Amino acid sequence: MGNENSQFDVVVVGAGVIGLSSAYHIKKNDPTLSVLVLDSNTAPAQGESAKSVAAVRDCFTSEVNRLLAGSSIEFYKHVQAELGFNLHLDLISYLWLYSEFQFKQFDLIEKELRENGVRLRVWDRKEIAAMIPDLVVDPNSEQSHLIGLESVFGAVQALNCGTVSPELVARFYENEFRKLGGEFQFRTEVRSLVLAPKNRLNLPGEPHIWQEKFFSGVRTIQGTILADTVVLAAGVRTPWLLDAVGVDCLVKPKKRQVFQLRGNTLERLLNTKGLNEQDVIPFTILPKSGIHFRPVRGERSIWVAAADELGRPFKLEEEPAAEEMYYNYDVNPVLSEYFPCFAGLRPTSSWAGHYDINSLDGAPILERVSNCVIVTGLSGSGIMKADAVGRVAAAVLEGKPEAVLFNGRAFTVSRLGLENRNVERERFVL
Amino acid sequence: MGNENSQFDVVVVGAGVIGLSSAYHIKKNDPTLSVLVLDSNTAPAQGESAKSVAAVRDCFTSEVNRLLAGSSIEFYKHVQAELGFNLHLDLISYLWLYSEFQFKQFDLIEKELRENGVRLRVWDRKEIAAMIPDLVVDPNSEQSHLIGLESVFGAVQALNCGTVSPELVARFYENEFRKLGGEFQFRTEVRSLVLAPKNRLNLPGEPHIWQEKFFSGVRTIQGTILADTVVLAAGVRTPWLLDAVGVDCLVKPKKRQVFQLRGNTLERLLNTKGLNEQDVIPFTILPKSGIHFRPVRGERSIWVAAADELGRPFKLEEEPAAEEMYYNYDVNPVLSEYFPCFAGLRPTSSWAGHYDINSLDGAPILERVSNCVIVTGLSGSGIMKADAVGRVAAAVLEGKPEAVLFNGRAFTVSRLGLENRNVERERFVL
Repeated sequence: MGNENSQFDVVVVGAGVIGLSSAYHIKKNDPTLSVLVLDSNTAPAQGESAKSVAAVRDCFTSEVNRLLAGSSIEFYKHVQAELGFNLHLDLISYLWLYSEFQFKQFDLIEKELRENGVRLRVWDRKEIAAMIPDLVVDPNSEQSHLIGLESVFGAVQALNCGTVSPELVARFYENEFRKLGGEFQFRTEVRSLVLAPKNRLNLPGEPHIWQEKFFSGVRTIQGTILADTVVLAAGVRTPWLLDAVGVDCLVKPKKRQVFQLRGNTLERLLNTKGLNEQDVIPFTILPKSGIHFRPVRGERSIWVAAADELGRPFKLEEEPAAEEMYYNYDVNPVLSEYFPCFAGLRPTSSWAGHYDINSLDGAPILERVSNCVIVTGLSGSGIMKADAVGRVAAAVLEGKPEAVLFNGRAFTVSRLGLENRNVERERFVL
Repeated sequence: MGNENSQFDVVVVGAGVIGLSSAYHIKKNDPTLSVLVLDSNTAPAQGESAKSVAAVRDCFTSEVNRLLAGSSIEFYKHVQAELGFNLHLDLISYLWLYSEFQFKQFDLIEKELRENGVRLRVWDRKEIAAMIPDLVVDPNSEQSHLIGLESVFGAVQALNCGTVSPELVARFYENEFRKLGGEFQFRTEVRSLVLAPKNRLNLPGEPHIWQEKFFSGVRTIQGTILADTVVLAAGVRTPWLLDAVGVDCLVKPKKRQVFQLRGNTLERLLNTKGLNEQDVIPFTILPKSGIHFRPVRGERSIWVAAADELGRPFKLEEEPAAEEMYYNYDVNPVLSEYFPCFAGLRPTSSWAGHYDINSLDGAPILERVSNCVIVTGLSGSGIMKADAVGRVAAAVLEGKPEAVLFNGRAFTVSRLGLENRNVERERFVL
């Protein structure tokens, strides 16, 4: 492989969880297709997938989000429970700590969420304070006033939610894809899509504007690889590759950082009792700035991250790194007021990746342009939606109007396209 | 001016037609506001506005497009006829030359267009051939077969359409804005928006994620200019400025080129009789690749351009230039088959600019983010919509739910926002 002009039925660009799930479902639906997955890394899921906090939730107001994430979580449960393949799926729940205003906003959607099958538990301020001894519900220091922190008025726990291992989800799809005869080529960076004329005339500068065009394959550092269909699941590289051929997928990259915290002061918080079967602190979201943390009991650590909105540039960094200043001045001042057990700790490790953000509605974008299938815009919820998105990608490739999700529900693929997009704005955000 | 920390109620970034119309309507609605227009050029409308072919039409299937362009054209007529300010508005009409397939597609929207007041004249193949002696309705050369040109099956002429001078439209708004006391500062490039914390604490790296933020002004090469509200009407620079502060306006730049053709062989075409009062060839669109041309009788020339879709990158070029190869291999082979009078000519002049393309629906995007009013996504129809868009921008700035367009019709401003966007996809495209 890697020789000039290898030819495949399908080339999938990107061996992250989205590329892997897409490749698997494409190959599974039609095992006669030759399918090659390309990636610049040395193994699957070494890009943005590896940098995620890998939380999964099915609690969304948007039906599209509920269907995609809900059915993917069900599939992961099935893989783990019935196929016996451990994904480290751990339904430790999500826990939103809310200010009074946020709590009242939640009131407006609670009924709708419950009617749609989202399993919730709601805690008042006293109850949640009693459940989490490490939580300060009423931060009152000088710093907390300067920062403008509000009291925790209540909390909302979503139960069919938790964490998973992206590496193991990737491994599952990799194994199944290989069993079906799917191929990989690693250490192969895709430099560009090859846009070619349908009828080549050997004129300079083809294809010209009056020529019908298609994607004949991809240019890599090891030469061109030809494909009947190109599936673009390259995460934040997808808009970069598409911009170069004049296609706008409405997605931009934004850096996100994760900080690992460890220390004896975190032990009690990590082992918070009674909020789940595991007796571990849930995946927890603070009332301010989308700061959230995930327990990783296996390494006796907590991973902390934040949702960067206004002020964090849309930009693709070649070697994104976590910024110590960001932890110290942006994250820690809020975190250590609500959870003083973090106060004296410095990150023992940190890393950064990018979200491929669809600012329009935050839902994935699955679109066909000529013979290229675009799978992008996961906006930070790629792992929790990977299975469903792979099924939709396969349906788009096959030209089917509907995909069948793991739970048997049909999903109209055009809902995620750009032409007839039909996605409600999500109202239950981090 | 230009000194550190000048302070204005409103700073408008960009003195193109959109910035000028916005500044004028803002100042007109409230003359007590101090309004400064900033531009990197030495005079108004020297950027993308100057590079346009400056055609105007009111024939659209989308109501939003009809309202914005229709009312702007009415306003330009009013300025010219009643205010006596010549804009070189010349309603020479648009003429679409259609293949059989295109003609039948048009059939599906003709009734709807007419019902919405669009004035049309439809020509069959024989009629249009008789009207335009220079037109070859049935190109039959070897080249035309290689290119895949189709016969002209018919033509559609939209009458309340034509051309205008962007420089004069700009001059009109500039004059009126100055009369009201509006100010300009040219030769001033805006490098970035200044995002500031509402409560400054003098910590390193402010604003932090837990701080409420606003735009305190703009950083220019001559220092910072403070403003209560920043209006971003910087064309293709708008997404560039917004990306840096983490705001996605869903717009990307794409280069567009214009070629000026002159020669005795064009005289008859230029002076085509009977299609309008002016006895000039209309603004004409060919059946292939969105290639179109505009007569400029004053300079005895025809300007030729094309709609670059798949293959033309989304990219901001610092010094965009027209490409001779593009004219020779992309435009001319089609153009000279339908209009052999162009065959032996080479461009006497050429230039290039960028469209600020909203790929979602092609309509303008007017959104408020904190105290910044974003006016973008004109997608090549900025001049024909400038008046209405300026009125909507003023309404957004004032926090009004409706703008009143020149023809007295109310326009719900949230239709052009990103939250509650309500724009039908345009089905009548070049």
